[in-house]
Amino acid sequence: MHRTKVRVVEDALDANNTIARANRDDFDRHGVAVVNLMSAPGAGKTRLLERALDGLAVRAGVLEGDVAGSLDADRLSLLHVPVTQLNTGAGFGGECHLDANMVRSAIPALPLDEIDLLVIENVGNLVCPAEFRVGEDARIMVCSVTEGEDKPLKYPLMFRACELVLINKIDLIPHLEVDVERLLANLEAVNPGARHMLVSARTGEGVDAFRDWLAEVPARVRAAA
Amino acid sequence: MHRTKVRVVEDALDANNTIARANRDDFDRHGVAVVNLMSAPGAGKTRLLERALDGLAVRAGVLEGDVAGSLDADRLSLLHVPVTQLNTGAGFGGECHLDANMVRSAIPALPLDEIDLLVIENVGNLVCPAEFRVGEDARIMVCSVTEGEDKPLKYPLMFRACELVLINKIDLIPHLEVDVERLLANLEAVNPGARHMLVSARTGEGVDAFRDWLAEVPARVRAAA
Repeated sequence: MHRTKVRVVEDALDANNTIARANRDDFDRHGVAVVNLMSAPGAGKTRLLERALDGLAVRAGVLEGDVAGSLDADRLSLLHVPVTQLNTGAGFGGECHLDANMVRSAIPALPLDEIDLLVIENVGNLVCPAEFRVGEDARIMVCSVTEGEDKPLKYPLMFRACELVLINKIDLIPHLEVDVERLLANLEAVNPGARHMLVSARTGEGVDAFRDWLAEVPARVRAAA
Repeated sequence: MHRTKVRVVEDALDANNTIARANRDDFDRHGVAVVNLMSAPGAGKTRLLERALDGLAVRAGVLEGDVAGSLDADRLSLLHVPVTQLNTGAGFGGECHLDANMVRSAIPALPLDEIDLLVIENVGNLVCPAEFRVGEDARIMVCSVTEGEDKPLKYPLMFRACELVLINKIDLIPHLEVDVERLLANLEAVNPGARHMLVSARTGEGVDAFRDWLAEVPARVRAAA
């Protein structure tokens, strides 16, 4: 029974990867670099994007994934950045992640000729988004210090899957019992050499470095092609 | 394609419900009431349990669900409460929720004759755990104020599925920009009349009320039978 289930899941992931490659080809054809932004619910993805997209040196667009509603898309559209909403809630209680086929369905609505960088804000979840490639060039995760220092050990795949880990809400450290050194050691344990940045979307601390990293993604992707 | 996918999911949920009823029958036969405890990663489920199980008026056990590791089970076992670990990480990147069949596989390891209340601590996730009944009598979710006031609108099924919503980490409110009145209004919008409690697992504020609620679950279940 268990073995059957795993095979079904692996088939689904295989189909997903095929569609992710087709997405990637479409993005490449338009010269658009793509970043997949992931985190637990409430870790601060949208707030960080509000900060980092403001003054970004390349033309960016956002594909906003949510189970329900368009709260985050509404916030980001105030920045005069093209935002496309993708809801996963149709059919039953809602998908807990974006997959390649959902992103594919949104491609016709994306202004690919007007942007250099597409940021896909995934559904808030530390498990399944890490399992489904959507055609991205790079993956970023946001981990809030309020979540505690043990999260890399409890959700290792997510922390391993990302090129950049943003440790957010560092302005709250004085009010928490969190051990940030231990958090970074746990990250190093599951993803040795992982790039990380300490940031606060509220105060703006560290956001310049993140904005610079984001602005360099299109050039890095072109150089690697 | 989409319709096919939904039907597969509905079949899976149907099978899940059948197994959940079998679990429920087993729990009933042993006179054990069961609570399914859910939240986003890092919202404070384990810390709240540490507080609430200490001095609880009924005999409790814990079934601890995690993608990987036994960090939370190790913490709870210090309370001299029977703790059983269930990891969802086998096979591929890890399941993002407990389902009825996973819980069923753990039943032989549970000391059902020695407890009145079983608390099932689910995987940290605000989407799929709400879709999968596991044989529980009641569902509790923990929402941390650090996650922001919009979460009921973004993850409505989770906030609707629960008999009790614990708003945790209220000791941090002075250091956040969160609008707790708005959070409670959003909860009321998706789940009118929902029971909620404001708590701080760190300071212990509000935990007595939660402990009393938890202690009354077995009697409530017996009265409803």
